[in-house]
Amino acid sequence: MSLEELFRRDLAVVNVGLASFAEAIRETGGRAVHLDWRPPAEGDRELGMALAHLLEDPRVGEANAEAFERFLDAHPVLVGVGTAGEVIPGMGERTILHAGPPIAWADMCGPMRGAVIGAALFEGWAAGREEAEDLAERGEIRFDANHHHGAVGPMAGIISPSMPVWIVEDRVNSTRTYSNLNEGLGRVLRFGANDESVIARLHWMADVLAPILGAALEVGGEIPIKPLVAQALHMGDECHNRNVAASSLLFRRLAPAMLRTGHRPEEVAAAIDFIVGNDHFFLNISMASAKAMADGAHGVPGSSLVTAMARNGVEFGIRLSGTADEWFTAPAPVIDGLYFPGFGPDDANRDLGDSAIAETVGLGGFAMAAAPAIVQFVGGTAQDAIAYTREMRDVTMGPNPAFTIPALSFNGTPSGIDALRVLDSGTAPVINTGIAHREAGVGQVGAGVTRAPLECFRKAVRSLSEGMQRATAAAG
Amino acid sequence: MSLEELFRRDLAVVNVGLASFAEAIRETGGRAVHLDWRPPAEGDRELGMALAHLLEDPRVGEANAEAFERFLDAHPVLVGVGTAGEVIPGMGERTILHAGPPIAWADMCGPMRGAVIGAALFEGWAAGREEAEDLAERGEIRFDANHHHGAVGPMAGIISPSMPVWIVEDRVNSTRTYSNLNEGLGRVLRFGANDESVIARLHWMADVLAPILGAALEVGGEIPIKPLVAQALHMGDECHNRNVAASSLLFRRLAPAMLRTGHRPEEVAAAIDFIVGNDHFFLNISMASAKAMADGAHGVPGSSLVTAMARNGVEFGIRLSGTADEWFTAPAPVIDGLYFPGFGPDDANRDLGDSAIAETVGLGGFAMAAAPAIVQFVGGTAQDAIAYTREMRDVTMGPNPAFTIPALSFNGTPSGIDALRVLDSGTAPVINTGIAHREAGVGQVGAGVTRAPLECFRKAVRSLSEGMQRATAAAG
Repeated sequence: MSLEELFRRDLAVVNVGLASFAEAIRETGGRAVHLDWRPPAEGDRELGMALAHLLEDPRVGEANAEAFERFLDAHPVLVGVGTAGEVIPGMGERTILHAGPPIAWADMCGPMRGAVIGAALFEGWAAGREEAEDLAERGEIRFDANHHHGAVGPMAGIISPSMPVWIVEDRVNSTRTYSNLNEGLGRVLRFGANDESVIARLHWMADVLAPILGAALEVGGEIPIKPLVAQALHMGDECHNRNVAASSLLFRRLAPAMLRTGHRPEEVAAAIDFIVGNDHFFLNISMASAKAMADGAHGVPGSSLVTAMARNGVEFGIRLSGTADEWFTAPAPVIDGLYFPGFGPDDANRDLGDSAIAETVGLGGFAMAAAPAIVQFVGGTAQDAIAYTREMRDVTMGPNPAFTIPALSFNGTPSGIDALRVLDSGTAPVINTGIAHREAGVGQVGAGVTRAPLECFRKAVRSLSEGMQRATAAAG
Repeated sequence: MSLEELFRRDLAVVNVGLASFAEAIRETGGRAVHLDWRPPAEGDRELGMALAHLLEDPRVGEANAEAFERFLDAHPVLVGVGTAGEVIPGMGERTILHAGPPIAWADMCGPMRGAVIGAALFEGWAAGREEAEDLAERGEIRFDANHHHGAVGPMAGIISPSMPVWIVEDRVNSTRTYSNLNEGLGRVLRFGANDESVIARLHWMADVLAPILGAALEVGGEIPIKPLVAQALHMGDECHNRNVAASSLLFRRLAPAMLRTGHRPEEVAAAIDFIVGNDHFFLNISMASAKAMADGAHGVPGSSLVTAMARNGVEFGIRLSGTADEWFTAPAPVIDGLYFPGFGPDDANRDLGDSAIAETVGLGGFAMAAAPAIVQFVGGTAQDAIAYTREMRDVTMGPNPAFTIPALSFNGTPSGIDALRVLDSGTAPVINTGIAHREAGVGQVGAGVTRAPLECFRKAVRSLSEGMQRATAAAG
């Protein structure tokens, strides 16, 4: 668009400075867009104008209202446990799904490579690590992003065909989402560990744990997840890096049914030991449910609602409801966090995992006011935790009445991230996260708070703007 | 003491008004006592002078320091389950223990009478309700206060010889404390219900549940309670009227061991169903542990630390560390609370139960800042919950480092209630509590926040003062 063209169009007032000034223009019937002092797109004039047009475009407003309503309406229910290759759509043989936006084997970070090798060993595609690496390098493993298949996984997020997965169904749209089962802490696949103990645990999870859990859901009935998350938020969880309440509540639901599955008592006892030993057992269900809520809002033309934020350890990617399956990526951030003894930022991999789907739907960093105790893990003070939640109101479409925060007078979690508001305010979505060692298999080295890169939102808004212009041209 | 005598004694400055004025006197080496504007003892001059002397008495200060240290050192551990008549010291045949300070059958409130009748039926002392009442009226049942036997019980708090009880041991003093097992909500003995379903449940708890729990503690090991309470405080409990986190954490500890007791699987499954169906299952353990901590501080001559607050539904009673086993009583308050639909203050029994032992040790109303969601149950706002905790700093000896509150920058719960400070400030200890219907067996009709009557503290301080004067006279 040339400057000449620009001035022929209706001009919206762009207010850079006090919001009250823009409010005054609006009150007198004018059209105004408020921009915080931080110039959007770091002063990129063309992008700033595109942003202004989108903020004023009634089609965008309507699309966002619809997408946000769909998001709030989503009703994820934990319905079962299945085998990835059998239940995840479009997952062929010799396929490995991974966290974040798409990435090739050659570009993967250490923990993801380690997890891929582990998955190949677990599947029996290779007898040893070198053979597994050869397979990957020769292109004999097909890689794809979890998000392309309704799936999500924490950290490396590796899902191979024989792995068990949670199945969550959104009762409103009858769509299904998936996540792998949480392995616990220590030497685990999601941090790239792939030794014999890791592979043996994966086999036990597939052969013993998953059938018992699946049977328990049949015996005890499906579990609606939003009420469980709502209760956990009143119990100090934010359902990303604090899941102790949700895991405990889930266990209370599952345990009585597990005893009635008819499975061998010593196997049920081992399954129960495994669950009670893992405060993050609920995380993967939280993620699959968040994916269901985000997918509920996806695919509304013109909507700037963010429906995915995910990291593959190299790139951070986002998707918008109104830009179909396009990813908008930027280098994944290095996390400023609390490191475990003996580790520091030099050991850290860049931000990794699909778990930012929690923040995408207003949990995790967005709900930290509900979980002040998490600051002992990610750093900062309880006041910081409250401040993060308040700050995220600036970039979201509204509170989620299903997820209230007692300490904030039972206001709902800020949810429905609007890419336009992110860019308009220059406020990047906050994400709390574990930190993986950059080398495969070392495991978690810390935790902290990071931000989604603004570059992702700049690319997304450009794409949305171009799409709207094409739509206008097609309509004209 | 005559006025003449009074003026022959050393005089302490009593500063009524700005605390800073008293501070200034102290800074220049003088002796001053600050009194808040509310005149202590409602202007009772003699009591005010006694209070001033006690506040300045170094023996009291030393006694309180010792008592508070003992309180903080207490280390309650859940060690087992036993039968009341066999494990509670001094509990003879045909004895029924009850909540609160001692009370005779003729004076008992409706819910307590109903529970006594239920206990007589459960024990097989009577075949019907009238026979049970006759027994009680003829004096053929011996009544005594739980607190006289190291025991505590919520609401009516009725413990009869065949009932199962939790056994908590304080590892520092090797003393044991006890509480009955929580029956759940609805028609239950502690609210005075005594129909067949109530008696049948009590038999099942004694015959099936208790042996499994006892065996589980043997198989799985004893459970230190302070770390569990500490974790629950980070998960939105205050461990009096909100126990959902603590109950869940306890269940996670007990369940794996329950499966390994060798008890019949269908009985273990029923026991697990019972526990997961009760968000207050932990309450009675919280109370027995609180009793252990309070008892740890009891019996320090000269100490004004409050070691018991308890209600029998007619009277509210307190005990001090330095006044041995004396009770200081006043009429139990009527509770201003949130009533369940169809009920109001006219239906309410006066404050009832030993559960204020929670507040006695800095939990419950004193820890409400940790549990903002409880205001949905007891009324008020999340800000009120924080304000209660802050206010209780005025009447306590210090924070308990074992029990931190994330929302208050991880400060400890205010604990070690000092009867002198209560009277000095006119600030009555806050207690959150369930409200029982005044008639036996109707059950809970609401919940709310109440205050310990100041009259109890006036009596206690008078007694402590007289004791110190006797000690002075004996020494002189």
